[in-house]
Amino acid sequence: MQRTAFFISDGTGITAESLGRSLLAQFSDVDIHMQTKPYIDTLEKAQALAAIIDATAVKDGQRPIIIDTIVDQQIRDVIRKASGFKVDIFSTFLKPLEQELATHSSYSVGRTHSIGSDDVYMDRIHSVHFALDNDDGARTHQYDKADVILVGVSRCGKTPTSLYLALQFGIRAANYPLTEDDLDEDGMLKLPKALAPHRHKLFGLTIDARRLAAIRNERRPNSRYSSMDQCMREIEQAEALYRRLHVPYIDATRFSVEEISTRMIAETGLARRFSPR
Amino acid sequence: MQRTAFFISDGTGITAESLGRSLLAQFSDVDIHMQTKPYIDTLEKAQALAAIIDATAVKDGQRPIIIDTIVDQQIRDVIRKASGFKVDIFSTFLKPLEQELATHSSYSVGRTHSIGSDDVYMDRIHSVHFALDNDDGARTHQYDKADVILVGVSRCGKTPTSLYLALQFGIRAANYPLTEDDLDEDGMLKLPKALAPHRHKLFGLTIDARRLAAIRNERRPNSRYSSMDQCMREIEQAEALYRRLHVPYIDATRFSVEEISTRMIAETGLARRFSPR
Repeated sequence: MQRTAFFISDGTGITAESLGRSLLAQFSDVDIHMQTKPYIDTLEKAQALAAIIDATAVKDGQRPIIIDTIVDQQIRDVIRKASGFKVDIFSTFLKPLEQELATHSSYSVGRTHSIGSDDVYMDRIHSVHFALDNDDGARTHQYDKADVILVGVSRCGKTPTSLYLALQFGIRAANYPLTEDDLDEDGMLKLPKALAPHRHKLFGLTIDARRLAAIRNERRPNSRYSSMDQCMREIEQAEALYRRLHVPYIDATRFSVEEISTRMIAETGLARRFSPR
Repeated sequence: MQRTAFFISDGTGITAESLGRSLLAQFSDVDIHMQTKPYIDTLEKAQALAAIIDATAVKDGQRPIIIDTIVDQQIRDVIRKASGFKVDIFSTFLKPLEQELATHSSYSVGRTHSIGSDDVYMDRIHSVHFALDNDDGARTHQYDKADVILVGVSRCGKTPTSLYLALQFGIRAANYPLTEDDLDEDGMLKLPKALAPHRHKLFGLTIDARRLAAIRNERRPNSRYSSMDQCMREIEQAEALYRRLHVPYIDATRFSVEEISTRMIAETGLARRFSPR
């Protein structure tokens, strides 16, 4: 039996969706079709959406689940009249919070999403361009300005991680590839020269050899670069380097970019320049 | 008077923080110091955190606000005993949801963060590399594979937006700069040749001239490129082009990257390849 869930917001919908997915993930045996409806910020849009919700209730033969973060009372009233099971976050928690904080809350549309300040904007732009300029070892003279330098074999996920750190937290993350150019005479990976003065900033990524081979195969099919042998060897050498030099590292196979980034922050005490959203 | 809020999670903390910030943004007259505590996934970590919370209560002279998404009951019990005002999302909403869905929820740690699947990982990597390969008009022969092509003057925010779309939603966003190279004899901006076959995929960004000048000044101080005159002229020409060709556009000065991205999706019906987190 299929159920539908609507995540509804007068803003981006990111909070409602994030919370909704977390709650509904606890019900993995129910087939729930999830839809995010952002920018429901007028009565007209709310009425149109209420009609969709009612039609969905008929189609599913079950009322939809409604998780919303709408602030405006009139708009919320329109949604509330639709046929649904309501998880009403704001009215559930704002009243008790008002009491606890001994003040009234400002029910103002858009108040919840206030990343728009000039400082945050500039920090974000800078961090993204820092990550791009210092991607894949392209430039190394800015490493004194880096908050962290990600290292790892080619295509293990350094670039997405450094961009996520930049966009979400304003962290300046450079990244540098570990390659066979830095093998010593015994076949052991040395710390590349450009990284030596910045050892304390290093953070390693590793990856499952099978996944790495799959990723590399899409780039250069049937090459030495993408062979299982080569992938396994490179990963072994990289992990040995991390252990030898006590570089903290994470397995990018087991974790999402969000998890890698937030774990890095938690483990290293990296400071965010701003907070997401 | 200062208050402290803790956003606590056994995972990334993204949901707890996102919800917490949304709720507390409604109390702008209270000075609330916010801290995110992710990966509280053992009793030991929970006990250490409970001690910090208790110490904060003494220091502030007020109990901290605790917003958590911990699933494990034992770990949650440790936090619950700390001195705090608890906004308990899961226990508030999971019981009624269990009733509504006529099933039991699986209280399993980590269940809430499940972006780790191979497909999502691959889509994400592809989208990020697509955005990078097709950044700033670098390559135009892949535009048939683009979901959207962002256009706008240099440094108006195209790159961060295309990367956000890639990371969060798996959307393949190319971007192309509008420059004076494409002015016609009357000083009007023409649609660059590479874009003509893909007009339906275009989405425009615009920006406040003062902010653009500030951003460009950090890159090339006191240049023609960063002068107010130049910035105003380029922006005018770009906006005229959008209006003439009916290219939808957004002002990147007024909105965050999250808002620009989610508005683009809402307005154009762009399909996400996956959902955040």
